[in-house]
Amino acid sequence: MNVTVWNEHVHEREGAEAARVYPDGIQATIAAFLGDLGAVRTATLSEPEHGLAAAVLDATDVLLWWGHSVHDEVSDAVVERVVARVWAGMGLVVLHSGHHSKPFKRLMGTTCDLRWRHDERETVWTVAPGHPIADGVPASFVIPEQEMYGEYFDVPPPEQLVFISSFTGGEVFRSGCCWTRGRGRIFFFSPGHETNPVYHQPEVQRVLINGARWAAPVE
Amino acid sequence: MNVTVWNEHVHEREGAEAARVYPDGIQATIAAFLGDLGAVRTATLSEPEHGLAAAVLDATDVLLWWGHSVHDEVSDAVVERVVARVWAGMGLVVLHSGHHSKPFKRLMGTTCDLRWRHDERETVWTVAPGHPIADGVPASFVIPEQEMYGEYFDVPPPEQLVFISSFTGGEVFRSGCCWTRGRGRIFFFSPGHETNPVYHQPEVQRVLINGARWAAPVE
Amino acid sequence: MNVTVWNEHVHEREGAEAARVYPDGIQATIAAFLGDLGAVRTATLSEPEHGLAAAVLDATDVLLWWGHSVHDEVSDAVVERVVARVWAGMGLVVLHSGHHSKPFKRLMGTTCDLRWRHDERETVWTVAPGHPIADGVPASFVIPEQEMYGEYFDVPPPEQLVFISSFTGGEVFRSGCCWTRGRGRIFFFSPGHETNPVYHQPEVQRVLINGARWAAPVE
Amino acid sequence: MNVTVWNEHVHEREGAEAARVYPDGIQATIAAFLGDLGAVRTATLSEPEHGLAAAVLDATDVLLWWGHSVHDEVSDAVVERVVARVWAGMGLVVLHSGHHSKPFKRLMGTTCDLRWRHDERETVWTVAPGHPIADGVPASFVIPEQEMYGEYFDVPPPEQLVFISSFTGGEVFRSGCCWTRGRGRIFFFSPGHETNPVYHQPEVQRVLINGARWAAPVE
Repeated sequence: MNVTVWNEHVHEREGAEAARVYPDGIQATIAAFLGDLGAVRTATLSEPEHGLAAAVLDATDVLLWWGHSVHDEVSDAVVERVVARVWAGMGLVVLHSGHHSKPFKRLMGTTCDLRWRHDERETVWTVAPGHPIADGVPASFVIPEQEMYGEYFDVPPPEQLVFISSFTGGEVFRSGCCWTRGRGRIFFFSPGHETNPVYHQPEVQRVLINGARWAAPVE
Repeated sequence: MNVTVWNEHVHEREGAEAARVYPDGIQATIAAFLGDLGAVRTATLSEPEHGLAAAVLDATDVLLWWGHSVHDEVSDAVVERVVARVWAGMGLVVLHSGHHSKPFKRLMGTTCDLRWRHDERETVWTVAPGHPIADGVPASFVIPEQEMYGEYFDVPPPEQLVFISSFTGGEVFRSGCCWTRGRGRIFFFSPGHETNPVYHQPEVQRVLINGARWAAPVE
Repeated sequence: MNVTVWNEHVHEREGAEAARVYPDGIQATIAAFLGDLGAVRTATLSEPEHGLAAAVLDATDVLLWWGHSVHDEVSDAVVERVVARVWAGMGLVVLHSGHHSKPFKRLMGTTCDLRWRHDERETVWTVAPGHPIADGVPASFVIPEQEMYGEYFDVPPPEQLVFISSFTGGEVFRSGCCWTRGRGRIFFFSPGHETNPVYHQPEVQRVLINGARWAAPVE
Repeated sequence: MNVTVWNEHVHEREGAEAARVYPDGIQATIAAFLGDLGAVRTATLSEPEHGLAAAVLDATDVLLWWGHSVHDEVSDAVVERVVARVWAGMGLVVLHSGHHSKPFKRLMGTTCDLRWRHDERETVWTVAPGHPIADGVPASFVIPEQEMYGEYFDVPPPEQLVFISSFTGGEVFRSGCCWTRGRGRIFFFSPGHETNPVYHQPEVQRVLINGARWAAPVE
C-alpha cells in the first residue's frame, strides 16, 4: 500500500507554536506513524506541482490532506488531478482545516463551512463501533486541547458516521465522516489543529491508520 | 390528519415529581400542543387493548409513543398490530425512554441500548437544517434539565440524522433520528424525561409537531 | 410555491422529431402540468442570463432543469448562482440528460457518467412506496419508447432511492434519486428523451409534480 | 477467519432437481469455494440445535444462511442466539430465499416480502464498483436460469446497495444489499435457487467470498 501525506507546510515553518509541536512539519509526524501500512511519502505545497505530479498520484493508494492558510494557492490543475484519482479509486483522508481545501469542497459539492473557536477540550465518541475505522478505538477519548469545530457542518450527509465530538462549550460536531465518490473513498477527521499535539496522541493515530486502511482501493 | 398519543401513564399517577410536571399525564400535554394537526386522541396502558384497538390504529395516521417503566406489560398482540400498521404507512414518533419499547425494538432489529444518567443540561443541535423536522427549530437550543442519554445508541444508522445533543458531562447523543420501515416513517426524539418540563418547552413542541407532520403517510 | 422550468430549448427549435413532440419546447409542456403547484415560469438558454437572473432565482422555490446538447454554453456565473441557491434551500429537479449539466455535476462532485443507447422500452419500478415522490405512482409503469440509461451511473449513493428502471436490453438504472446539499433538495429523474413523448405521460407527470413538491424548501 | 455455512438442507435430500444440482447439499458447495477464507464448517437444521450451539456461534466470524421451505422449524432460541451474535459483531450473509428466514426478518424489522416467479434469466449489475463486495466482479454478468425476485422488496433501505438485477420479464431487484445491526454486518445476495446451478458459477462465488470477507468483524 502506497500512502502520500500532503501538507501545505506553512504554519510550522513560520515558527512559534506550530513549529514547536511539529518541528519537521505535520506531514512528517503523520508519515511516521503510518509507516506500518507500507510505503509512505510526503508532499508539500512548495514542491513542483505541490509534490503531486501525475506519476506520484498514479502510484498513490491513499492520500492524506492537511491544509489551512493557503488553500487558494493550490493549483486547480493539481486539484482536478487529485479529484480524478479519487474517482478512479484512490482513497482520500481529509484532516481538520482541510474541510475548506479545494479537493474536498470539489468532491462534496457544498460549502463545507462550520463554526469554530480556539482552545477547547474535545471528547470524541464512537457511534459506529463495528466500523473498520473504529477498530481498537475506545468508546470515547479526550483531546485535551483542540480547536472547536461545531455544527452546522455543511457537507452532504455522511454515508457512514463514525465519530461525533463534543466540546466544553457544549458544541457537537460530526468529527469522523465517510463518503464515496466514484470508486474512491473519502474519510474526514476533524481533530488536528497545528498548535496542539493532536497527531502525537495514540487514539488519533489509531483512527488515521484505520482511516487510511479503510480508504484504500479494494483491488 | 388523525393523531394518537400513547403513554403508559404510570409515573404521573404515582404522584411526586412527574405528577407535578404533568398532572394530566404526558399524553395530555402532548395532545394539547399537537391540536392544530387535526384530530388528536390519547390512549394509555390501562385501557382495554391499551387503547389501541384495531379500529383506533386503522384510523391513526401518526402514533406517538411514550413508555418507560412497564414496557413488558404491553401485550405482544398490540405490539404486532402497531408494527403492522407502521409497515402499512402509519407514522410512529417514539419519545425518550420509548427507545426500549417493544414496538421500537421490534422495528429497529437491535437492542436500542444507550447510556444514561440523571439531571443534566442538554443542548440540541440541528445537523440537517433543510429537513422538514428542523423547520423553525433554531440552530441549537438548551433544555435546562433533562436526563442524559449518551452514545453508543444501539440502533441502525439513521436514514436521516436531524439532531445531535450534548450534555454537561461531555456526552453526545443522536437525539433526532429518522427511519422507514415498509411504507411507514419512524422518528425518534430523545428529550422527554417524566420529571422535567421538557414537553412544555416551545422548541420541543415545534420538533414534535414537525415530526408528526413528517411521519404522516403521503396519501 | 414558485417554480421555474429551465430548458436549453435547442432540439425543439431545430425541427424534426423533437419539434413534433414538443412544439413549444419541453419547458412549456412541463410548466403546463405543474400549474397546480403555484406560479410556474419558464426560462431558456437564449434569454439574458439564460432567464436565471438573480431576482428570478431568489424568487424560485424549485427549479427544474433540462439540458443536453449545449451544457457547455451555460455560463459559469449562472451555474454558481444556481448552486448557491440550492445550498440556501431552493429545490432542484434534474431531468434526463441534465445528468451531465454543470449544476448537477457541480453539486454531485462526480462525473455523473452513465451508459446509453437509443430506442428502448423502459419499465420504472417503485422501490420506496412510502416516499412522497412515489405518492400515487403505480408499483411499476412502462414508458413505451425511451432512450436507455444504464448503470454504472457515477453519482454519490442516493440518500433516497425511489425508482429503478429496467430496459428491454436487460440494463438497469437508478432512475429516481434524491440528495441534499446544504438546505436544498435535489431530485434526479432519468426518463425524458426529447424525441419521445415521455413528458406527455400521466405517470411521469405525477412523478415530477411529486418531485417538485418534495424538493420545495420547508419554510 | 471462521466461517459457518448453514443450510436447512431439505430440498436436496428430497431428490429430483435440487439433489442433482447440489448432491451434497448447497452448504457443501458453498463451503468448498469459501475454503480460502479460513476454517469453514457447515451446519443444518436436523443437527442438534440446528448445528448452531452457543460454542459454534461464539467461534464463528461469519455465518451464511440458506433456508426456504422450513423457516418455521428453526427454533426461536437459536434465532435469538444468532441475532445476539450479529449484534456482537458476527457477520451474516443471507442467501436467496433466506429473505424470509427468522433471523433476517428479526434483524430487518420488516416483512422482507418480495415478488417471485420461476425460471428467468437474471442479469446482475454492479452499482457500487468501489465497494469491497464488488472487487473483481464484472460490471454485469448473466445467470442463465434463476428464480425471479422482484420489487417491491420490503426491507429497510440498504445502507449500501452493491448490485441490482433485471429479469427477462422486465422486473428489477436490489440483489446485493448491506446493513449493519449493532457491531455486526449483514449482506443479502438474492441469486441462489436450489434447482439452478447458481452457486457453481464463478461470479457468484466471487460475490460470496467478498461478502463473507466484508461481513467479518473488524477485530
